[in-house]
Amino acid sequence: MRGGETGAGRRGGDEPPIALALAEARAAGARGEVPVGAVVTDAAGRVLACAGNEVEARRDPSAHAEMLALRAAAAARGDKVLPDCTLTVTLEPCPMCAQAASFFRVRRVVFGAYDPKGGGVEHGPRLYASAACHHAPEVVGGVREGEAGALLRAFFAGLR
Amino acid sequence: MRGGETGAGRRGGDEPPIALALAEARAAGARGEVPVGAVVTDAAGRVLACAGNEVEARRDPSAHAEMLALRAAAAARGDKVLPDCTLTVTLEPCPMCAQAASFFRVRRVVFGAYDPKGGGVEHGPRLYASAACHHAPEVVGGVREGEAGALLRAFFAGLR
Repeated sequence: MRGGETGAGRRGGDEPPIALALAEARAAGARGEVPVGAVVTDAAGRVLACAGNEVEARRDPSAHAEMLALRAAAAARGDKVLPDCTLTVTLEPCPMCAQAASFFRVRRVVFGAYDPKGGGVEHGPRLYASAACHHAPEVVGGVREGEAGALLRAFFAGLR
Repeated sequence: MRGGETGAGRRGGDEPPIALALAEARAAGARGEVPVGAVVTDAAGRVLACAGNEVEARRDPSAHAEMLALRAAAAARGDKVLPDCTLTVTLEPCPMCAQAASFFRVRRVVFGAYDPKGGGVEHGPRLYASAACHHAPEVVGGVREGEAGALLRAFFAGLR
């Protein structure tokens, strides 16, 4: 997890958030984590926080890249909510992370690969489409989907 | 959050987990938090971790009592999963916490008050009933529901 460190303050114009998220995913994979990366950017495209999956390192199945990046971004801001922000992640968020993004009130969720088995945004519970969802971010899926998916496929093929 | 501190190692026989969770909820309310408390116990009824809501204290909308208690219990155990454990919480878990309990592979989720607006177990996405849910804990709802609900109603009435 990085908040206010590498990449912080960088403009999205230089490198799009999904490229930073893919770099975090690759770094996570190199550490033996499922390769998923996430970035939170503000309205000006400044990076507030980057994180890769840390489930193995922390021995914590809730340490998904999105959870870490959201928490780090809020801490960097000193605020509880991120209403002008975009969460960019290489994989469709699971229900836990999708609900967390809603609690942090992010404006937009951008993701790479779709996750028909574990996703909670465009699959499974489709949380933001639910009447019970108090804050539904805008969603853009499939951004650099090929790269994001290839990383995951290569990782799981390597485990077999 | 307490793991391996107050209450740790205590047997459920002395005080049922829901009583400990209600005490955590009351303490959270006294700190200005939404009064929700959670406890993780092992198969022998020993308390691995207790936590109250810390959303305001941490300025982190993901710092729900359940998330804190699950993480603390896994840390106390030194394991990533809690397959013999019960998560007892005063309020029906939201989708974030319900999904986290599934990722931590808890055996059972026991809760107090039902949450028709924000719950994710018996309401909203009913996550454990979904075909996409890889690990569905057993669920027991409505345990000391009256007390748990009264705490929440008193808290929100006080805010008005």
